[in-house]
Amino acid sequence: MRHVLDIVDLSKEEIETLLKRAEDIIDHPKLYRDACRYKKLATLFYEPSTRTRLSFEAAMLELGGAVIGFEAGTSSSTTKGETVGDTVRTVSQYADVIVMRHPNDGAPYAAIQRTEVPVINAGDGGHNHPTQTLADILTIYKKQGRLNDLTIGLCGDLKYGRTVHSLIRALIRYNNVRFVCISPKELCLPDYILQLMDENNVEYKITDRMEEYMADLDVLYMTRVQQERFDTRAEYERLKDCYILTTDKLLTAKPTMSILHPLPRVNEIACDVDDDPRAAYFDQVAFGKYMRMALILELIDDAEKGNAAPERVKILTDKRCDNPRCITCREDLKPYAVNGKSGLRCYYCEALLK
Amino acid sequence: MRHVLDIVDLSKEEIETLLKRAEDIIDHPKLYRDACRYKKLATLFYEPSTRTRLSFEAAMLELGGAVIGFEAGTSSSTTKGETVGDTVRTVSQYADVIVMRHPNDGAPYAAIQRTEVPVINAGDGGHNHPTQTLADILTIYKKQGRLNDLTIGLCGDLKYGRTVHSLIRALIRYNNVRFVCISPKELCLPDYILQLMDENNVEYKITDRMEEYMADLDVLYMTRVQQERFDTRAEYERLKDCYILTTDKLLTAKPTMSILHPLPRVNEIACDVDDDPRAAYFDQVAFGKYMRMALILELIDDAEKGNAAPERVKILTDKRCDNPRCITCREDLKPYAVNGKSGLRCYYCEALLK
Amino acid sequence: MRHVLDIVDLSKEEIETLLKRAEDIIDHPKLYRDACRYKKLATLFYEPSTRTRLSFEAAMLELGGAVIGFEAGTSSSTTKGETVGDTVRTVSQYADVIVMRHPNDGAPYAAIQRTEVPVINAGDGGHNHPTQTLADILTIYKKQGRLNDLTIGLCGDLKYGRTVHSLIRALIRYNNVRFVCISPKELCLPDYILQLMDENNVEYKITDRMEEYMADLDVLYMTRVQQERFDTRAEYERLKDCYILTTDKLLTAKPTMSILHPLPRVNEIACDVDDDPRAAYFDQVAFGKYMRMALILELIDDAEKGNAAPERVKILTDKRCDNPRCITCREDLKPYAVNGKSGLRCYYCEALLK
Repeated sequence: MRHVLDIVDLSKEEIETLLKRAEDIIDHPKLYRDACRYKKLATLFYEPSTRTRLSFEAAMLELGGAVIGFEAGTSSSTTKGETVGDTVRTVSQYADVIVMRHPNDGAPYAAIQRTEVPVINAGDGGHNHPTQTLADILTIYKKQGRLNDLTIGLCGDLKYGRTVHSLIRALIRYNNVRFVCISPKELCLPDYILQLMDENNVEYKITDRMEEYMADLDVLYMTRVQQERFDTRAEYERLKDCYILTTDKLLTAKPTMSILHPLPRVNEIACDVDDDPRAAYFDQVAFGKYMRMALILELIDDAEKGNAAPERVKILTDKRCDNPRCITCREDLKPYAVNGKSGLRCYYCEALLK
Repeated sequence: MRHVLDIVDLSKEEIETLLKRAEDIIDHPKLYRDACRYKKLATLFYEPSTRTRLSFEAAMLELGGAVIGFEAGTSSSTTKGETVGDTVRTVSQYADVIVMRHPNDGAPYAAIQRTEVPVINAGDGGHNHPTQTLADILTIYKKQGRLNDLTIGLCGDLKYGRTVHSLIRALIRYNNVRFVCISPKELCLPDYILQLMDENNVEYKITDRMEEYMADLDVLYMTRVQQERFDTRAEYERLKDCYILTTDKLLTAKPTMSILHPLPRVNEIACDVDDDPRAAYFDQVAFGKYMRMALILELIDDAEKGNAAPERVKILTDKRCDNPRCITCREDLKPYAVNGKSGLRCYYCEALLK
Repeated sequence: MRHVLDIVDLSKEEIETLLKRAEDIIDHPKLYRDACRYKKLATLFYEPSTRTRLSFEAAMLELGGAVIGFEAGTSSSTTKGETVGDTVRTVSQYADVIVMRHPNDGAPYAAIQRTEVPVINAGDGGHNHPTQTLADILTIYKKQGRLNDLTIGLCGDLKYGRTVHSLIRALIRYNNVRFVCISPKELCLPDYILQLMDENNVEYKITDRMEEYMADLDVLYMTRVQQERFDTRAEYERLKDCYILTTDKLLTAKPTMSILHPLPRVNEIACDVDDDPRAAYFDQVAFGKYMRMALILELIDDAEKGNAAPERVKILTDKRCDNPRCITCREDLKPYAVNGKSGLRCYYCEALLK
């Protein structure tokens, strides 16, 4: 564990360690409140994400550490043309661990090339957001008492929902986890995720009606369906209410089911549901903070021990990545590739190279 | 004392407690410098207010606590459509006390509906700004030695000046406080404030000339007269200099008079006046910090004791608030009313419901 | 030492003290980590400068102190028309030392008129930036072991490069320091700097080719050449590569030479050079932090002892400064002058008064 850029950078065992540590923090917060005294966290937010930023800042402060950083619109070095690599290398002179949010896919992989300080990816475009998944996992674990033997409903925008993909990739490593995919056809899971579930013999069902398998679910993971994602306005009008969770739709649900949402919500969960004991999304906020505390502790500890992460094997290539959101479209980076499914993929954003 | 959204949320006794506490902090700052160790204050500024934000941050730091938060333009959750209620409930997982500034009248009343953490209103549109009034009160108390038996000049924009209204509402609870209202006719006090003074048998005089009662004043509270508030440019040109305080105009003033201003000033107090011993407006800045320290301490203390505030009785209504600046115009909130002067008023912004 | 607005506000002896203190901090960081406990630094950034701001914040945090402040675009008092003097006087109620960055030349001189708290200039327009020069000096001292007997190459935009002028003004006070000025003719050093070197019998050479004196250099100080600074695009195309440092151009350089750059760079130093042991620009970042720690410590210490700085003698004048970037163009300030080279100069921005 050195940098955490993708949820699968963490093994099942490492996630187990983080879960145990987070639980210990929850039970004994005072034991940790000076754990990072004299340490500094840098939050480099190239695009705004108040919730994620405040969660990391609260996490570091509850460990007794301090925080520096910038937010979108306040970073001048970037407007002056500095690369993320130079910024991160500069900031590594000021901080013990760096948290980075960036609008371009793969930006953190460009950032870590020359830094000695552990970097946490707090979201890179539509690519990864591993600490949201850590929050989701702890919430499921605390609410359901296990990560095996679960039926998990995923509802809303499953096509573009980065948090959904990441959660699936994390949970297919556990035993007997089944998914119910609830979305309009336009917004169902991308092929590579379906393929991944097939390869791992993970059972899943697909529906466009939230109520259909409601009674089976241990977890209902809600996400927002944005109007602009539909083909036509008529289609949006026809379907939009299907993906709004109301107390009515919960009638058949198990009393022990947990409702999760990465937040912020707009209207996809009615406010009445907030009072239902199954609503877990505000607890999820707190659990996210505790998992970030656990992660910061582990990374600083590892860095002090000099533990280096095994870097991903990268290959110099002459193919250009044609993902328009890739960091390589913004910065002049060495064209590296990694061996992946269906051939060479961009080292940074993991898009297939053609 | 649980949330402080309006100066009249604080009884005379509670204000007395805060004054005594602030004085003790001034006299013995070292006794307080670890009082909030391991506590966090969140500053949620939906519109910028550097002065108020820095005052709260300095206050919390001088109590040994830490600060997280956001400023206008840096909050992403809001642009994503999150309600103030959801934001405050989320942030309540990260902080022990929340300070909130919002451009819409009544926003903090929407925000507190589901939060367990004490909320302080740091200004909601043209509605309330109770901690400015606390700063004003401590300044008067420290400079004049009392809050009874005072003649207080209020000068400038008395129509829209939120701080002036709030100061009047706070001080009419003391004995023998008289007001001299100095403003152009267009900008005199609103009827409901005049009515309030009448009902409380508070003596007041109205003039459009600053010098007229200068010799009587114990306190001169200056505010800015903005050009756009006048009916015509000619009217503005004719009157503007009347409301600029110069050393000349102070010739007849008592040597013990105190000049207050909520700041920032533009030109309504000439810089020469800064050197006059009666100028109290920079001391007022420091006093504001000490009152905020006292308030944060009280609220955290109360929250730890589990003291709940008596919530205002609210009535579900079918009338819509038609104040265009009310938070109900921005968010889809339950239409609550409170019983007030002249009939039902909006629970959030206190505008009369028609 | 009270305010530090210009590098020559610090005598050679004071710089020596800061160098020794910075070295001691580097060697014994734990001895300093609570040195500013209970102290606050305010960072008032009227224009963004992420790097400088983070360096000061990291410096204060590593001394155990706390930080408040604002960044460009987030300060509301300024947009409301407050003067820098009023802002600084207000903030002096909240902080023990103030760091100020401003787009207008001379702004810090306007700011200090009524404040009791030490102010550090973190850049005022194209005028001064003394803490960058402190970073440069410590880097040279640590890498070369001395500040006398040095040949220093200055490369790039020497006309507008504020850091270059400041470095020259600081180093001409040492013995046997020679400069090699490498720039296109359009961007050579301004006359007053050449004159200053002449008056101090400082040897310098002028060239437009980086390689010409490369073998002689102990230090190569790189800066960026912006396209818009050239007279014609053809001229830019012809010259631009001359001022890009590559591994090739280093072939004749001494193995002990140090390459400095104030950062951020765009492309004026090729990334390959980063791996060369002579590359000192990321170390320079860390040295900047240590010098800022030393400076903060000295200023707070001095302020506690009540040491007042000898203020520059200023003369009331009826001449107006016609530097369009001067703070006097933005704020209505008293027209002060100082006696300088070639006659009266603006007290604020030091432009010659005509």
